[in-house]
Amino acid sequence: MERLKRQISFILELDKLKSIVRQTYLADGSRKEDDAEHSWHLALMAFVLAEYANEPVDVLKTMKMVMLHDVVEIDAGDTYAYDTAGNSTKQKRELAAADRIFSLLPADQAQEYRGLWDEFEAMETIEAKFANTLDKVQPALLNDASCGKSWREHGVKESWILKRNERVPEGSKELWEYVKDLIEKNIGKGNIEGDSNGTRNQ
Amino acid sequence: MERLKRQISFILELDKLKSIVRQTYLADGSRKEDDAEHSWHLALMAFVLAEYANEPVDVLKTMKMVMLHDVVEIDAGDTYAYDTAGNSTKQKRELAAADRIFSLLPADQAQEYRGLWDEFEAMETIEAKFANTLDKVQPALLNDASCGKSWREHGVKESWILKRNERVPEGSKELWEYVKDLIEKNIGKGNIEGDSNGTRNQ
Repeated sequence: MERLKRQISFILELDKLKSIVRQTYLADGSRKEDDAEHSWHLALMAFVLAEYANEPVDVLKTMKMVMLHDVVEIDAGDTYAYDTAGNSTKQKRELAAADRIFSLLPADQAQEYRGLWDEFEAMETIEAKFANTLDKVQPALLNDASCGKSWREHGVKESWILKRNERVPEGSKELWEYVKDLIEKNIGKGNIEGDSNGTRNQ
Repeated sequence: MERLKRQISFILELDKLKSIVRQTYLADGSRKEDDAEHSWHLALMAFVLAEYANEPVDVLKTMKMVMLHDVVEIDAGDTYAYDTAGNSTKQKRELAAADRIFSLLPADQAQEYRGLWDEFEAMETIEAKFANTLDKVQPALLNDASCGKSWREHGVKESWILKRNERVPEGSKELWEYVKDLIEKNIGKGNIEGDSNGTRNQ
């Protein structure tokens, strides 16, 4: 019973992800999404789009990874992709959060899930690369669907996006081709400020 | 490319689950949760609590099932557990929704995911039974954490809950024991109206 109580306390602690708001709008632009919704969307993409990973992926492992990848934001908050100051302190804040949150679990699960979180961060295995690719592709899809609302609000430049997405092809060359077209289209519409003319199609 | 476009249209269609509000409050009672958040929470529970299923479960299959189990609510809306009129028309509305939504996908995936949705509804396999158990346990956990807010708002009676949860033990006897204690506790607190004295411990 002690074991189940620990697991339930972890499950209830993670409920807080529903209150952590990201900078990405829902597809209909009505409001910004939260971390739980984002994680659900990535887990959906993990199995619907698994065939596009550059190498065969363990889908269950990838799903667990994306379900857990943002839990540290319960303590560390969501750091916006293009927030330079926030990103300089992000790693330290997130490591402390991972220590606290995974330790709510029984030791065997704490070790397994912390391992998955570390693996996602290290981005060396194909599952971690594919999960990271999905984590970049999902907001691009929503930003495109919501007429570039978040990109425009933050004055996002093409060079920022290309820098942020530079490792996307490591998870899936095909999904990167899709996203590249979508970026092009949104530069054409003025939703993203084009500033890398001639480099983006390399 | 046509295949990927169909998959992306399904992924974006399902974004609408983020706007379908359920009757369950977040653990902190601040607002009601939506279908995407609920589905994420069930998928989390599917792997954290898999050991409590009455028989060994295919965790990946269970996760896909809970990720998809509410997609029909995009068209049919969320029918509250204790809404008698709504529940009388629910099945017909949901079948029409399943036909439309899964057909957005390429044929092979449409067939697989529709099969998982049908399997969840039929509640015959251990994965479907366990997924249905989680679908009942999760709101009980949140209702308990939020001091019975939703139960009190709807004047929920013990007999309603026992009826609604009567098949929970088929997925997990251990989780049912946990929930039964939690129901008892909330009757004691006056969050649930006790009306089945003497039957609830059978």
